[in-house]
Amino acid sequence: MPHIDVGNDQPGIRSLFFYRPETAGPLSELAETLLRAPSSLERWERELIATHVSELNECRYCATTHAAFTSAQLPDGLDLTIIRADLGTAPISDKLKALLAIAAAVQQNGKEVTAELIDRARAVEATDLEIHDTVLIAAAFCMFNRYVDGLATTVPDDPDNYSTRAQALVRDGYLPVVELARAHQAARAL
Amino acid sequence: MPHIDVGNDQPGIRSLFFYRPETAGPLSELAETLLRAPSSLERWERELIATHVSELNECRYCATTHAAFTSAQLPDGLDLTIIRADLGTAPISDKLKALLAIAAAVQQNGKEVTAELIDRARAVEATDLEIHDTVLIAAAFCMFNRYVDGLATTVPDDPDNYSTRAQALVRDGYLPVVELARAHQAARAL
Repeated sequence: MPHIDVGNDQPGIRSLFFYRPETAGPLSELAETLLRAPSSLERWERELIATHVSELNECRYCATTHAAFTSAQLPDGLDLTIIRADLGTAPISDKLKALLAIAAAVQQNGKEVTAELIDRARAVEATDLEIHDTVLIAAAFCMFNRYVDGLATTVPDDPDNYSTRAQALVRDGYLPVVELARAHQAARAL
Repeated sequence: MPHIDVGNDQPGIRSLFFYRPETAGPLSELAETLLRAPSSLERWERELIATHVSELNECRYCATTHAAFTSAQLPDGLDLTIIRADLGTAPISDKLKALLAIAAAVQQNGKEVTAELIDRARAVEATDLEIHDTVLIAAAFCMFNRYVDGLATTVPDDPDNYSTRAQALVRDGYLPVVELARAHQAARAL
């Protein structure tokens, strides 16, 4: 049960978006920009970074949600279970492996991102913008994970919940929840 | 020197806002909503939470910046040096002390926010919204701190830099930098 009375029965971060639409707006826009806007990193690659950081933070809601978002956008022939089993030997690019290593450092503390990690990413053709976005995705999930777990939001056990959410995400992105949250708030105020 | 070529000589997070205005927008709106919008928590109280988390993350740029923002908005008679020296005995409300304890737990991991910490805050009249905003401020600074340090942005040594910035913040808030960043990006694209 959440630490506060959120006034809705949505799971995870959605319960907090419905509770506080004023902050749901910028948080959702940040996710949309980082994870869905045009980028030289594929959407599934960005979602994999989010999943990896959420796992390292042991945030079950976010890790399960973004694993589903990654899976739903994977190219044919890639299997997330195999990728997550061992990132080192996974059939993903050396660039993505180097960016995942930067993300794992960010999860510890920003100062853990060493010049060596940056050099390793550059050596496999990571651009400044890709490095920037990786650091910010990892930092943002250190926020989202703490937000979700710090208020003890509910975590659905049913896998269907996550796959249904993933279909909606692939179709509509991160922004529709903000309008739903505002409508919910307006209805409560009546 | 920053890990990436930010293309400007702004300090700290400002250099990243100028580099990437697309994410500067939601990040600045989040800060404005959490730290400046109408709230039952005073602005200096919210800035103190931000300062405390930044100190725990050892982010010198953010801790120095938000300490200056706290100081600039403190009521007469309060001295930030004395408050920061020992939060336990500081001349601040028991409610703020309980919220700072929640923020410190969030800094570790969301799961560290126990029912006991929440009960302690409620016992000294903290509301659900105050608890929510404290958790999100603390989580957000776990992001901002990692963003700033993860890309090794520059940290000014001159104290005047921070006091000048604090005057502008008190007057104009967190949003004007976004327009500056967009103008800088547009000028670079010419």
